Amino acid sequence: MRLLASTDFALRVLMLLVRAEPGRPVSVEALARELGGLSRHHLHKIVQELTALGVTRTVRGASGGVVLAADPATVRLGALVRRLEGGQALVECFQPGGCACTLLGECGLRGMLREANDDFYASLDRYTLAECVVPAAP
Amino acid sequence: MRLLASTDFALRVLMLLVRAEPGRPVSVEALARELGGLSRHHLHKIVQELTALGVTRTVRGASGGVVLAADPATVRLGALVRRLEGGQALVECFQPGGCACTLLGECGLRGMLREANDDFYASLDRYTLAECVVPAAP
Repeated sequence: MRLLASTDFALRVLMLLVRAEPGRPVSVEALARELGGLSRHHLHKIVQELTALGVTRTVRGASGGVVLAADPATVRLGALVRRLEGGQALVECFQPGGCACTLLGECGLRGMLREANDDFYASLDRYTLAECVVPAAP
Repeated sequence: MRLLASTDFALRVLMLLVRAEPGRPVSVEALARELGGLSRHHLHKIVQELTALGVTRTVRGASGGVVLAADPATVRLGALVRRLEGGQALVECFQPGGCACTLLGECGLRGMLREANDDFYASLDRYTLAECVVPAAP
Protein backbone atom coordinates (compact mmCIF):
# COMPACT_ATOMS: atom_id res chain seq x y z
CA MET A 1 0.00 0.00 0.00
CA ARG A 2 1.38 3.38 -0.86
CA LEU A 3 0.48 7.05 -0.98
CA LEU A 4 1.12 9.23 -4.01
CA ALA A 5 4.63 10.72 -4.14
CA SER A 6 2.89 14.09 -4.52
CA THR A 7 1.08 13.55 -1.18
CA ASP A 8 4.37 12.65 0.50
CA PHE A 9 6.01 15.85 -0.80
CA ALA A 10 2.94 18.01 -0.06
CA LEU A 11 3.11 16.90 3.58
CA ARG A 12 6.81 17.76 3.70
CA VAL A 13 6.13 21.23 2.22
CA LEU A 14 3.52 21.81 4.94
CA MET A 15 5.91 20.61 7.66
CA LEU A 16 8.58 23.02 6.39
CA LEU A 17 6.00 25.84 6.61
CA VAL A 18 4.96 24.75 10.13
CA ARG A 19 8.62 24.81 11.14
CA ALA A 20 9.19 28.29 9.67
CA GLU A 21 8.55 31.53 11.55
CA PRO A 22 4.75 32.00 11.62
CA GLY A 23 3.51 34.31 8.86
CA ARG A 24 6.96 34.59 7.22
CA PRO A 25 6.78 33.27 3.61
CA VAL A 26 9.24 30.55 2.61
CA SER A 27 10.61 30.99 -0.91
CA VAL A 28 10.08 28.28 -3.49
CA GLU A 29 13.89 28.14 -3.80
CA ALA A 30 14.27 27.34 -0.08
CA LEU A 31 11.53 24.66 -0.27
CA ALA A 32 13.18 23.11 -3.34
CA ARG A 33 16.54 23.01 -1.54
CA GLU A 34 15.03 21.23 1.48
CA LEU A 35 13.19 18.74 -0.75
CA GLY A 36 16.36 17.55 -2.48
CA GLY A 37 15.21 15.48 -5.40
CA LEU A 38 12.01 17.38 -6.21
CA SER A 39 11.89 19.30 -9.51
CA ARG A 40 10.74 22.92 -9.51
CA HIS A 41 7.90 21.89 -11.84
CA HIS A 42 6.53 19.34 -9.35
CA LEU A 43 6.97 21.73 -6.44
CA HIS A 44 4.90 24.37 -8.24
CA LYS A 45 2.14 21.84 -8.91
CA ILE A 46 2.11 20.77 -5.25
CA VAL A 47 1.94 24.37 -3.98
CA GLN A 48 -0.90 25.06 -6.43
CA GLU A 49 -2.79 22.04 -5.07
CA LEU A 50 -2.24 23.06 -1.43
CA THR A 51 -3.40 26.59 -2.25
CA ALA A 52 -6.51 25.22 -3.99
CA LEU A 53 -7.22 23.23 -0.80
CA GLY A 54 -6.94 26.44 1.24
CA VAL A 55 -3.97 25.23 3.29
CA THR A 56 -1.32 27.56 1.82
CA ARG A 57 -1.22 30.86 -0.01
CA THR A 58 1.39 32.55 -2.15
CA VAL A 59 2.84 35.95 -1.28
CA ARG A 60 4.32 37.93 -4.18
CA GLY A 61 7.30 40.26 -4.06
CA ALA A 62 10.99 40.23 -3.14
CA SER A 63 10.45 38.55 0.23
CA GLY A 64 7.50 36.54 -1.08
CA GLY A 65 6.96 32.82 -1.13
CA VAL A 66 4.59 30.29 0.34
CA VAL A 67 2.89 30.64 3.72
CA LEU A 68 0.31 28.65 5.68
CA ALA A 69 -3.24 29.89 5.10
CA ALA A 70 -4.71 27.94 8.03
CA ASP A 71 -3.77 27.38 11.67
CA PRO A 72 -1.95 24.00 11.55
CA ALA A 73 -3.46 23.09 14.93
CA THR A 74 -6.87 23.04 13.24
CA VAL A 75 -5.89 21.00 10.16
CA ARG A 76 -6.86 17.34 10.73
CA LEU A 77 -4.32 15.03 9.14
CA GLY A 78 -6.77 12.39 7.88
CA ALA A 79 -8.99 14.91 6.09
CA LEU A 80 -5.89 16.54 4.59
CA VAL A 81 -4.34 13.30 3.30
CA ARG A 82 -7.71 12.11 1.97
CA ARG A 83 -8.01 15.30 -0.09
CA LEU A 84 -4.41 15.07 -1.31
CA GLU A 85 -5.03 11.47 -2.42
CA GLY A 86 -8.17 12.69 -4.20
CA GLY A 87 -8.96 10.41 -7.08
CA GLN A 88 -6.77 7.48 -5.97
CA ALA A 89 -8.68 4.19 -5.95
CA LEU A 90 -7.47 1.68 -3.34
CA VAL A 91 -8.34 -1.11 -5.80
CA GLU A 92 -9.59 -1.07 -9.40
CA CYS A 93 -13.29 -1.40 -8.53
CA PHE A 94 -13.15 1.78 -6.38
CA GLN A 95 -12.58 3.86 -9.52
CA PRO A 96 -15.50 6.11 -10.43
CA GLY A 97 -16.00 4.15 -13.67
CA GLY A 98 -16.01 0.83 -11.79
CA CYS A 99 -14.49 -2.30 -13.31
CA ALA A 100 -15.39 -5.47 -15.14
CA CYS A 101 -14.73 -7.81 -12.18
CA THR A 102 -16.95 -10.89 -12.53
CA LEU A 103 -17.06 -11.32 -8.74
CA LEU A 104 -18.88 -8.05 -7.97
CA GLY A 105 -22.23 -9.72 -7.24
CA GLU A 106 -20.70 -12.08 -4.68
CA CYS A 107 -18.05 -9.76 -3.27
CA GLY A 108 -17.78 -9.09 0.45
CA LEU A 109 -14.23 -7.77 0.10
CA ARG A 110 -15.17 -4.32 -1.23
CA GLY A 111 -16.97 -3.41 1.99
CA MET A 112 -14.04 -4.69 4.10
CA LEU A 113 -11.55 -2.64 2.09
CA ARG A 114 -13.75 0.44 2.38
CA GLU A 115 -13.87 0.05 6.17
CA ALA A 116 -10.10 -0.42 6.35
CA ASN A 117 -9.61 2.66 4.15
CA ASP A 118 -11.87 4.69 6.45
CA ASP A 119 -10.03 3.35 9.53
CA PHE A 120 -6.73 4.50 8.00
CA TYR A 121 -7.99 8.09 7.67
CA ALA A 122 -9.77 8.02 11.05
CA SER A 123 -6.46 7.01 12.61
CA LEU A 124 -4.72 10.03 11.02
CA ASP A 125 -7.59 12.30 12.06
CA ARG A 126 -6.54 11.85 15.68
CA TYR A 127 -3.65 14.20 14.84
CA THR A 128 -3.24 17.70 13.42
CA LEU A 129 -0.72 19.16 11.00
CA ALA A 130 0.87 21.07 13.89
CA GLU A 131 1.69 17.79 15.64
CA CYS A 132 3.65 16.52 12.61
CA VAL A 133 6.63 18.68 13.56
CA VAL A 134 8.28 17.92 16.87
CA PRO A 135 11.03 20.19 18.22
CA ALA A 136 14.51 18.88 17.40
CA ALA A 137 16.46 17.60 20.37
CA PRO A 138 18.95 20.28 21.54
CA MET B 1 -3.72 5.43 -1.40
CA ARG B 2 -3.67 2.30 -3.44
CA LEU B 3 -2.80 -1.38 -3.27
CA LEU B 4 -0.64 -3.12 -5.89
CA ALA B 5 -2.57 -4.35 -8.91
CA SER B 6 -1.01 -7.75 -8.20
CA THR B 7 -2.58 -7.76 -4.71
CA ASP B 8 -5.98 -6.87 -6.20
CA PHE B 9 -5.73 -9.77 -8.67
CA ALA B 10 -4.31 -12.19 -6.08
CA LEU B 11 -7.37 -11.55 -3.89
CA ARG B 12 -9.66 -12.19 -6.87
CA VAL B 13 -7.85 -15.46 -7.65
CA LEU B 14 -8.38 -16.56 -4.03
CA MET B 15 -12.06 -15.57 -4.16
CA LEU B 16 -12.52 -17.62 -7.33
CA LEU B 17 -10.95 -20.60 -5.52
CA VAL B 18 -13.17 -20.05 -2.45
CA ARG B 19 -16.20 -20.01 -4.75
CA ALA B 20 -15.14 -23.23 -6.52
CA GLU B 21 -16.05 -26.72 -5.32
CA PRO B 22 -13.74 -27.43 -2.34
CA GLY B 23 -10.65 -29.45 -3.28
CA ARG B 24 -11.42 -29.27 -7.03
CA PRO B 25 -8.55 -27.54 -8.88
CA VAL B 26 -9.42 -24.56 -11.07
CA SER B 27 -7.44 -24.45 -14.32
CA VAL B 28 -5.25 -21.46 -15.10
CA GLU B 29 -7.33 -21.05 -18.28
CA ALA B 30 -10.55 -20.71 -16.28
CA LEU B 31 -8.93 -18.22 -13.87
CA ALA B 32 -7.58 -16.17 -16.80
CA ARG B 33 -11.05 -16.10 -18.37
CA GLU B 34 -12.65 -14.82 -15.15
CA LEU B 35 -9.93 -12.19 -14.70
CA GLY B 36 -10.56 -10.57 -18.08
CA GLY B 37 -7.66 -8.23 -18.66
CA LEU B 38 -4.98 -10.21 -16.84
CA SER B 39 -2.17 -11.68 -18.96
CA ARG B 40 -1.23 -15.34 -18.53
CA HIS B 41 2.27 -14.19 -17.54
CA HIS B 42 0.96 -12.08 -14.64
CA LEU B 43 -1.44 -14.80 -13.56
CA HIS B 44 1.40 -17.32 -13.34
CA LYS B 45 3.45 -14.90 -11.22
CA ILE B 46 0.50 -14.31 -8.87
CA VAL B 47 -0.19 -18.04 -8.45
CA GLN B 48 3.53 -18.59 -7.76
CA GLU B 49 3.40 -15.90 -5.05
CA LEU B 50 0.25 -17.34 -3.45
CA THR B 51 1.83 -20.80 -3.47
CA ALA B 52 5.01 -19.42 -1.87
CA LEU B 53 2.79 -17.91 0.86
CA GLY B 54 1.21 -21.34 1.44
CA VAL B 55 -2.30 -20.21 0.47
CA THR B 56 -2.59 -22.15 -2.80
CA ARG B 57 -0.98 -25.19 -4.38
CA THR B 58 -0.76 -26.41 -7.94
CA VAL B 59 -2.11 -29.81 -9.01
CA ARG B 60 -0.57 -31.30 -12.16
CA GLY B 61 -2.31 -33.42 -14.75
CA ALA B 62 -5.29 -33.27 -17.12
CA SER B 63 -7.75 -32.10 -14.45
CA GLY B 64 -5.08 -30.12 -12.66
CA GLY B 65 -4.94 -26.45 -11.80
CA VAL B 66 -4.82 -24.28 -8.71
CA VAL B 67 -6.44 -25.18 -5.41
CA LEU B 68 -6.57 -23.61 -1.93
CA ALA B 69 -3.87 -24.99 0.38
CA ALA B 70 -5.43 -23.53 3.53
CA ASP B 71 -8.92 -23.39 5.06
CA PRO B 72 -10.16 -19.92 3.95
CA ALA B 73 -11.97 -19.54 7.29
CA THR B 74 -8.56 -19.49 8.99
CA VAL B 75 -6.85 -17.02 6.65
CA ARG B 76 -6.95 -13.53 8.22
CA LEU B 77 -7.37 -10.87 5.54
CA GLY B 78 -5.07 -8.26 7.08
CA ALA B 79 -2.15 -10.66 7.44
CA LEU B 80 -2.73 -11.89 3.88
CA VAL B 81 -2.85 -8.42 2.30
CA ARG B 82 0.17 -7.29 4.32
CA ARG B 83 2.19 -10.21 2.93
CA LEU B 84 0.95 -9.59 -0.62
CA GLU B 85 1.99 -5.92 -0.34
CA GLY B 86 5.39 -7.10 0.92
CA GLY B 87 8.00 -4.52 0.12
CA GLN B 88 5.60 -1.62 -0.58
CA ALA B 89 6.53 1.49 1.37
CA LEU B 90 3.57 3.74 2.30
CA VAL B 91 5.88 6.75 1.89
CA GLU B 92 9.49 7.09 0.72
CA CYS B 93 11.03 7.07 4.21
CA PHE B 94 9.45 3.65 4.97
CA GLN B 95 11.73 2.04 2.36
CA PRO B 96 14.36 -0.25 3.84
CA GLY B 97 17.11 2.06 2.57
CA GLY B 98 15.40 5.11 4.12
CA CYS B 99 15.49 8.50 2.42
CA ALA B 100 17.30 11.82 2.47
CA CYS B 101 14.39 13.80 4.00
CA THR B 102 15.81 16.75 5.94
CA LEU B 103 12.85 16.68 8.34
CA LEU B 104 13.56 13.23 9.82
CA GLY B 105 14.91 14.59 13.13
CA GLU B 106 11.78 16.67 13.76
CA CYS B 107 9.21 14.36 12.18
CA GLY B 108 6.14 13.23 14.10
CA LEU B 109 4.34 12.21 10.92
CA ARG B 110 6.19 8.91 10.44
CA GLY B 111 4.78 7.49 13.66
CA MET B 112 1.27 8.66 12.77
CA LEU B 113 1.46 7.05 9.32
CA ARG B 114 2.78 3.83 10.85
CA GLU B 115 -0.18 3.72 13.26
CA ALA B 116 -2.65 4.39 10.43
CA ASN B 117 -1.01 1.66 8.34
CA ASP B 118 -1.33 -0.78 11.26
CA ASP B 119 -4.97 0.27 11.80
CA PHE B 120 -5.70 -0.47 8.12
CA TYR B 121 -4.45 -4.05 8.46
CA ALA B 122 -6.04 -4.53 11.89
CA SER B 123 -9.35 -3.53 10.33
CA LEU B 124 -8.95 -6.20 7.62
CA ASP B 125 -7.87 -8.76 10.23
CA ARG B 126 -11.43 -8.72 11.60
CA TYR B 127 -12.36 -10.76 8.51
CA THR B 128 -11.26 -14.00 6.90
CA LEU B 129 -10.77 -14.97 3.28
CA ALA B 130 -13.89 -17.14 3.51
CA GLU B 131 -16.00 -14.05 4.31
CA CYS B 132 -14.87 -12.29 1.12
CA VAL B 133 -17.29 -14.38 -0.95
CA VAL B 134 -20.99 -13.94 -0.19
CA PRO B 135 -23.57 -16.20 -1.86
CA ALA B 136 -25.10 -14.58 -4.92
CA ALA B 137 -28.73 -13.56 -4.55
CA PRO B 138 -31.01 -16.20 -6.18
